[in-house]
Amino acid sequence: MSTRNPLNIGASARAMANFGFSRLRVVAPYDVAFREARSAVGAAPLLARAEEYPTVADAVADCPLVIGTTSVGHRELQHPIRRLEYGARQIRRALPETGVALLFGSEKFGLSNLDLSHCHWLMRIPTVGTDLSMNLGQAVALCLYELARDPRAVRARPAAIHAATAGEQEQITAMLLDALRQSGYIQPRTAGSTEEKVRRLVRRLAVSGKDVPVLLGMLRQILWKLNS
Amino acid sequence: MSTRNPLNIGASARAMANFGFSRLRVVAPYDVAFREARSAVGAAPLLARAEEYPTVADAVADCPLVIGTTSVGHRELQHPIRRLEYGARQIRRALPETGVALLFGSEKFGLSNLDLSHCHWLMRIPTVGTDLSMNLGQAVALCLYELARDPRAVRARPAAIHAATAGEQEQITAMLLDALRQSGYIQPRTAGSTEEKVRRLVRRLAVSGKDVPVLLGMLRQILWKLNS
Repeated sequence: MSTRNPLNIGASARAMANFGFSRLRVVAPYDVAFREARSAVGAAPLLARAEEYPTVADAVADCPLVIGTTSVGHRELQHPIRRLEYGARQIRRALPETGVALLFGSEKFGLSNLDLSHCHWLMRIPTVGTDLSMNLGQAVALCLYELARDPRAVRARPAAIHAATAGEQEQITAMLLDALRQSGYIQPRTAGSTEEKVRRLVRRLAVSGKDVPVLLGMLRQILWKLNS
Repeated sequence: MSTRNPLNIGASARAMANFGFSRLRVVAPYDVAFREARSAVGAAPLLARAEEYPTVADAVADCPLVIGTTSVGHRELQHPIRRLEYGARQIRRALPETGVALLFGSEKFGLSNLDLSHCHWLMRIPTVGTDLSMNLGQAVALCLYELARDPRAVRARPAAIHAATAGEQEQITAMLLDALRQSGYIQPRTAGSTEEKVRRLVRRLAVSGKDVPVLLGMLRQILWKLNS
């Protein structure tokens, strides 16, 4: 919608590429801004294929579902407004059977009432406070991120870091104790309890298997120096 | 981290304001960029309060937990990498008891291996493909949006639109049937089945209570014109 700033068109296109969207339609862009955005270094290829339309009606003519976006409270609540998290889920369910158009307003004025009248409902980005609007490129990135969201990802633990085995942990403990003995850290009177403390400390470190040879190498070197 | 572009510092600060974060620390910024960002029209007040540090170590010195961010696959996996959705949940659980630093790299080079060595783990923004990095301001917005996320929002239905009552729907039906009779749309031979079709169509429209007087007013005017 009538973007004035080529950086915003470029940032929007980049976010589309980041999240796997490909069809960009631009409504009545300022000529210079659109030309600059297309020719920017590193412009996403989808920007070169962007389609230009004179009006919102033309741009969304073939889309059964048109969603307007906003980050500010709307003056007149003539449209159902859904929070981004909820609205994106509704859109994901409609896709890919139903073509969905996401409509963003210009940096300066947002979507006009005429633009809004083409929308079936609105999606609101849940910012704190409603007085500060969002940067256009950031709003596009958030909406597409949420649309591309895999609902299971929040519970999907990353691949576990392979932890050191108990045997490896004990190897480290033994060598550390050696070094502590050599350096006079361990007092004969309290040697027993100190050993236990050190053993527990090594367990708390949550050493990964990959780090075992590194730690052993360090301790070996320190021991060598202590003994020489 | 050494941002060169004042627009990116400004966009990052704006995203912080949008999602309720307030403490911005800038590491070794290019002087001109930082000054320009601070003095930009509409700059967030938190930008004026931004603290400047010469090194990452200085900037995170008081933070028990330091998280690096990346949108590209990292060359060497010396850090646990968590997807944004999962990592943000971990951070939300640590907050507010634990101070957490989120570290973003410069536009051009991202985080260096030295920067990364200050991090406890990394958070990856789940873009498609790993060859196209993200715009800095957009990456900041996504991470803060996810951190500020209310996990229940995805299931929170918006306030239901008050639907027209059956009585109101029948009022509309009756008046529409009147208009259709006056205009000759209803043929005497099939009047019964046509009435049923019209009644069902009105029910499918899912008219909201607020729209009832508007629709009745339109039909009343049309009827008046048809009868005059």
